[in-house]
Amino acid sequence: MELKNMTLKEFCDKVAEKSPVPGGGAVGAIVASLAASLNQMVANLTIGKKKYEEYEEIMEEVLENMELSRRRLQDIADRDIRAFNKVMEAFKIPKDNPERKEKLEHALKEAADVPFELARESRNVMKYTEITCKWGNKNAISDAFSAAELSLAAFKIAMYNVLINLKSIKDSAFVKHYEEELKELKGEIEGIYNNIKELIAANGFEI
Amino acid sequence: MELKNMTLKEFCDKVAEKSPVPGGGAVGAIVASLAASLNQMVANLTIGKKKYEEYEEIMEEVLENMELSRRRLQDIADRDIRAFNKVMEAFKIPKDNPERKEKLEHALKEAADVPFELARESRNVMKYTEITCKWGNKNAISDAFSAAELSLAAFKIAMYNVLINLKSIKDSAFVKHYEEELKELKGEIEGIYNNIKELIAANGFEI
Repeated sequence: MELKNMTLKEFCDKVAEKSPVPGGGAVGAIVASLAASLNQMVANLTIGKKKYEEYEEIMEEVLENMELSRRRLQDIADRDIRAFNKVMEAFKIPKDNPERKEKLEHALKEAADVPFELARESRNVMKYTEITCKWGNKNAISDAFSAAELSLAAFKIAMYNVLINLKSIKDSAFVKHYEEELKELKGEIEGIYNNIKELIAANGFEI
Repeated sequence: MELKNMTLKEFCDKVAEKSPVPGGGAVGAIVASLAASLNQMVANLTIGKKKYEEYEEIMEEVLENMELSRRRLQDIADRDIRAFNKVMEAFKIPKDNPERKEKLEHALKEAADVPFELARESRNVMKYTEITCKWGNKNAISDAFSAAELSLAAFKIAMYNVLINLKSIKDSAFVKHYEEELKELKGEIEGIYNNIKELIAANGFEI
């Protein structure tokens, strides 16, 4: 069953049970989808208002981009589960089987790849969140700020899920490359989040 | 329709559309539920393992408490929508109607109350997250850390949603009381989060 067709209750129950999937990776993708959805809502509440006329075009772009992002995120959530299941299968291969090492390494790389895509997608959602925080309808500004918290959380979750897989990967060039890319993404996302934090304070939402 | 019976896709679509509900408040409650569910998963993966025998009892408490918390959070999500709808109705009362002022004030207070409950519930989830981060199965530690990010995000979202309603409330004693309580909660939650951040770094999950 595709995750998007599960009810909220079913999904929470599935996460909670004694099985590592769906776990943080899939949850992170859902959380990023919620951020994208909030951005769409803010854009929808901004479009057509005389006061925000000059931001009409950029809000149309928010709508379109976030819709595509949500589709990719739903796909990431489903793939995260499949990738993790492959790791579990590889771990079950008997230790004296000569194929074990390679299959496990391959599965772990895939299991690192999927949350890495989530990390990249979270950056995209955070970028569009800056737009809704800056130019969105002020009546919905708390929703835009909420999207910022969710984009940041989704990125951090993605990061933890990449890192836990990297810990078991032997290919040190692969590990180094991913760590560096993650560091760069982190700097970028935290930079945008800090801009938004200034808006949060300037609008009197910091206590 | 109760939120918990919506599919993930339906919920995201509902958030995204041109209507302020469901908005940040309901999304925040769902996000806190996801954090609670991840804590349950970590507890489930810890219970019954010889290595973690000494934490069996506390993990049983995590399971029980987080299950109850999820029920309260689902209720908060539904009530957030109803409270917001009441505010929208009160805003529609003609300005020359003498009842308008009181009805609007009452609706706004309720709309601040519900996310305030979410803020309190996020503190509870964060408390239990510290337990799963400290004593949970190390193989699922990225999931416990993910729960920490979600608890923090849920609290911030709750805070923004309380504050946006406080801005329109005339009763200054009410506003002051809520702001102070929120500040206290914030200090407490950030304190626990900072403890968890040390665990994140100590376990090599910081880059």
